[in-house]
Amino acid sequence: MYAGIDIGGTNIKAIIANREGAILASSKDRTPKTAEEINETIIGLLRKMLEKKGFRISALKSIGIGAAGAIDGKKGIIITSPNIEAWKNYPLAPVIEKKTGVRVFLENDATAAVIGEWWTGHGKKFKNWVMLTLGTGIGGGAVIDNKVYTGQSGSSLEIGHLTIDYKGKQCPCGNRGCFERYASATALVETIKAKLKKRSSSLLMRMKTEALSARMVFEEANKGDMLAREALEEVGFFLGVGLAGLVNIFNPEAIIIGGGLSHAHRYLLPVAKKVVQERALPGLKDNVKYLIIKNEDKTPALGAAKVGIDSLGL
Amino acid sequence: MYAGIDIGGTNIKAIIANREGAILASSKDRTPKTAEEINETIIGLLRKMLEKKGFRISALKSIGIGAAGAIDGKKGIIITSPNIEAWKNYPLAPVIEKKTGVRVFLENDATAAVIGEWWTGHGKKFKNWVMLTLGTGIGGGAVIDNKVYTGQSGSSLEIGHLTIDYKGKQCPCGNRGCFERYASATALVETIKAKLKKRSSSLLMRMKTEALSARMVFEEANKGDMLAREALEEVGFFLGVGLAGLVNIFNPEAIIIGGGLSHAHRYLLPVAKKVVQERALPGLKDNVKYLIIKNEDKTPALGAAKVGIDSLGL
Repeated sequence: MYAGIDIGGTNIKAIIANREGAILASSKDRTPKTAEEINETIIGLLRKMLEKKGFRISALKSIGIGAAGAIDGKKGIIITSPNIEAWKNYPLAPVIEKKTGVRVFLENDATAAVIGEWWTGHGKKFKNWVMLTLGTGIGGGAVIDNKVYTGQSGSSLEIGHLTIDYKGKQCPCGNRGCFERYASATALVETIKAKLKKRSSSLLMRMKTEALSARMVFEEANKGDMLAREALEEVGFFLGVGLAGLVNIFNPEAIIIGGGLSHAHRYLLPVAKKVVQERALPGLKDNVKYLIIKNEDKTPALGAAKVGIDSLGL
Repeated sequence: MYAGIDIGGTNIKAIIANREGAILASSKDRTPKTAEEINETIIGLLRKMLEKKGFRISALKSIGIGAAGAIDGKKGIIITSPNIEAWKNYPLAPVIEKKTGVRVFLENDATAAVIGEWWTGHGKKFKNWVMLTLGTGIGGGAVIDNKVYTGQSGSSLEIGHLTIDYKGKQCPCGNRGCFERYASATALVETIKAKLKKRSSSLLMRMKTEALSARMVFEEANKGDMLAREALEEVGFFLGVGLAGLVNIFNPEAIIIGGGLSHAHRYLLPVAKKVVQERALPGLKDNVKYLIIKNEDKTPALGAAKVGIDSLGL
């Protein structure tokens, strides 16, 4: 049995898998604030899943953890994390290893999602593909020649920081016009807020502006809210702009979309695909398949488990 | 003995190499207009090089050809070419094969340049790197895990059609704001022309606008022409914008610059590097090495020869 943990800004998701990638148990909990509380939540989730099956934590062969941020995988340290302020050069893997007695391996969450999809999802069908996780930012990765490509530093591909407008919106990363400033869940919320300032016909007007989330926007779109649909279409346009660039550069067989915003694919993808058709090169754009991550809820944790399995094997 | 031919819009360059990549002979000639004249030039160059050594064309084991455009490598057909109008679905490889009795293999010229640099140039030192050829457009490619990556269709990576300004200059490809509209030799000429309209203090004023070339601009810059230097710096800025995106996406060990405009690297690179430092992510930008193609004049032809050698081996 191998554990996989996916630590997001909102939830911590955990699974227990076997060596073949079958999920034996899964559980999740809210992400607490402090590093110590996060550690306890992780261990609590593992204990709960295992006890139901009559096991202790020591029955685990490894624990793989996917977390957002700059990661030193070798040392198991989170250098910085955009979502969890408590983590600054935090040795998450050594700490959990000490508390559990099980080997712990750390990976960037977007890379973990790519590994999960490559292992058990749509990725199995393709040799060269690109994955985007549309969440607070845009993460992602590329599988090249059936191997997950993580670049020279082995961190992750920063697809979200592809420039689509060199004089565009300022990004906290220092660049201007980064893809994720236009096509992430955060961008969707910004877009709807800007629209609400101009018009008041939307159902979303009854919510407090601060409380608006991407999920609300596509729930209202489902109920027929036109302003919500317009905002989603605008984000879909920018998704297409970024994808056209990625199609021209990677010439992939498939693009797989994950992350929370992938739930809004019926609004985003038709627009994005049309933009790719208008903007990417013939020959490159013609045979691309667009797919939604197989199991948005569990794939990143499953990928984290795979990191543990493979690291043990070395 | 293996021949390699690099067909550009201006010159046809030919080399004879051995299996290890040593150049045994080289020659070049102007690129003529018609398909038939191009064929004769190719054969003339081969004959000239071989006769000097006392051989006939039949002594060649293979001829590899790199040509700009959309290529069907399997059939040896040039589908379309931006530089040579005479080529429309032109079966270049079969035609040369028939005329010479030697096996002929066709590859995109930018990919041939990457293969040449990977085989005998700076590329040998790195596992993951990106190459840009700055010419009429921007071509290029990526070497991933020590293999030349050509995408699913095996054509070439269209780095020049990365979007850096989604509402920017119209590109003939259909997209807006393509990288090559801002940082190619063509872009340099457009930039200087725009500057000359506004100001007349440049030495370049004495040339006819139509006759201006990228080479003239950096020759004048070498002589101290401030307007030429300004134009080069502007192109260097955009080179940096594109490179920052490529650094974030590919996380490469090295960026290798080729193509005619690479001769102006002392103007372009300092600006481009500074922009990458401002715009790309820490951890990704820190260890990138910037190199100029080892032998701009012969590497693409050498890469074409390698395509022939490897194709024979299959």
